[in-house]
Amino acid sequence: MSSEKCFAKGSPAPGPVPQDRLRLYSMRFCPFAQRTRLVLHAKGIKFDTININLKDKPDWFLEKNPYGLVPVIETPAGEVVFESMITSEYLDEVYPEKKLLPATPFGKAKQRMMLEHFSKIIPHFFKITSAKRKGDDVSGLEAELKEKFTDLNNRLVKEKTRFFGGDTITLIDYMMWPFFERLEMFEVQHCLNHTHELKKWTEYMLEDQAVKATMHSTDNHRVFFKSFQDGEPDYDYGL
Amino acid sequence: MSSEKCFAKGSPAPGPVPQDRLRLYSMRFCPFAQRTRLVLHAKGIKFDTININLKDKPDWFLEKNPYGLVPVIETPAGEVVFESMITSEYLDEVYPEKKLLPATPFGKAKQRMMLEHFSKIIPHFFKITSAKRKGDDVSGLEAELKEKFTDLNNRLVKEKTRFFGGDTITLIDYMMWPFFERLEMFEVQHCLNHTHELKKWTEYMLEDQAVKATMHSTDNHRVFFKSFQDGEPDYDYGL
Repeated sequence: MSSEKCFAKGSPAPGPVPQDRLRLYSMRFCPFAQRTRLVLHAKGIKFDTININLKDKPDWFLEKNPYGLVPVIETPAGEVVFESMITSEYLDEVYPEKKLLPATPFGKAKQRMMLEHFSKIIPHFFKITSAKRKGDDVSGLEAELKEKFTDLNNRLVKEKTRFFGGDTITLIDYMMWPFFERLEMFEVQHCLNHTHELKKWTEYMLEDQAVKATMHSTDNHRVFFKSFQDGEPDYDYGL
Repeated sequence: MSSEKCFAKGSPAPGPVPQDRLRLYSMRFCPFAQRTRLVLHAKGIKFDTININLKDKPDWFLEKNPYGLVPVIETPAGEVVFESMITSEYLDEVYPEKKLLPATPFGKAKQRMMLEHFSKIIPHFFKITSAKRKGDDVSGLEAELKEKFTDLNNRLVKEKTRFFGGDTITLIDYMMWPFFERLEMFEVQHCLNHTHELKKWTEYMLEDQAVKATMHSTDNHRVFFKSFQDGEPDYDYGL
C-alpha cells in the first residue's frame, strides 16, 4: 500500500480519488505521516497512498496543502485534511468502527493535553542526533530526555494501565509510537533503561497489528535517516 | 468577574470549585486566556476567575498545570483542562448551548487547520514589536504580516462570509480575535489598510457581546504591554 515510489516535481497529477477509498499523501519514513497510517490501519479504512518527494514537491501537491507537509488526507468528495492530529481526529469521527478517542469531553481533552506534552519532547530526539553529528557532548540533552521518559513512565505507573489511555490502545499511543519505533535510529534507546513501564509499553505496542503494518526495520530507518541528515533523503530506499 | 487582583506565590490556595460553576485560572491581559473567556461568555457558562501572577506563580497553581500557563479550567468534579483550544473544544462539547464548532467532522477539521495556520501568524506580532523596541528596521516583517493578512482577507472574499466559519461567529473567530483586539498595542493597525474584508470582520467582531464582555481598551493594553516588555508586568493595572 505504501510500496509506491515517491512523486516529485513534474510528476503527473493523480486523478480524482475513487469513490470507495481515501487517499493518503505520505512519505514512507515520516513519523507524522505514520501517525495517520496507524489510524487508517487500526480502523480498517481502505486507502491508497501517494508518496511525496518532500525535497522536490509536485505543484499539484502544494495545491492540496500549501505548507507542503505530509500527512494529507483526500476524500472522494474532494475534502482535504492535513496535520497528523487533525487527520486522525477526523478519521476517528468519520469512521465509527473501533473508536480511538474516548467518548467523554474530558477523556478527549486529556488525550489532547498529553499530545501537547509529548509534542514538546519530540524536538529532543532531533537535537540529540544533530549535536552528536557535530561531535558535541550530549550528556545534558540525554539527561533531559531521560527525565521526560521518567515522567511518561510515572503516568503509566500512576494510572496502572498498559497504555496511555487505558488498557487498550487509544489515539495518544498511536501519536507517540512513531518516535519510539525510531529510538535506535536516534541512538537514544538506552534512555529507556530505567523506565520499566514505558519499556513494557513499547513491547505491547509492537504486538499491535497497525504498528506491525506500518513499521520499518531499524536498519531501514537508519539508512533513510543518514541520507536525510546528509541532505539527500532517499525516499524510495528499500523499494 | 475578572476584576480580581492576581494571586502570587504564597497566596492561600482557593478552596474547592463550587458545585454549580466552573473556575477559570486566567491573566487579565493574556490573549490565550481571552480565547477561553470569549467561549465562556459566548456560551453563557457561569464561572469564577482566579487571576494568576505569571511571573511569580503560586505553588498550588503549578500543581494544577505543571507548565504554569493560563488558561486553565477546573470543574467541581476536579477535572483540570488547559491549553486555549483544548479548553475551548472541551467547553463547546460539554455545554450544548450555542455550539461554536460545526457539527461535521470536516467542518471541525477546517477550523482546526485554520487555527494551525493562524498560530503561525502569532509570532509575527511579537517579532515586530521587539524589533521596533531595539530600533531595528521592521519593514520586512511588516510586509510579511501584510501578506498574512491578505491571505486571511482572501479567505473571507472566497467564502463570501462575514466570519471565518460562516455568517455567524464560530470558534475560529474567537481564537483569532484577541490578537486583532491588540493590533494598536502591537502598532500594526496599518497592516489592515488594504484588507477590506478582514477590516470589516474586526468591525463585526466588535459588535459581539462576548467580545465586548472580555475586551480591554487599547490604552490599557498599551500600559500593560509596556510593563510586560519592561520585565515588570503590571497584572493588576486598572483595578
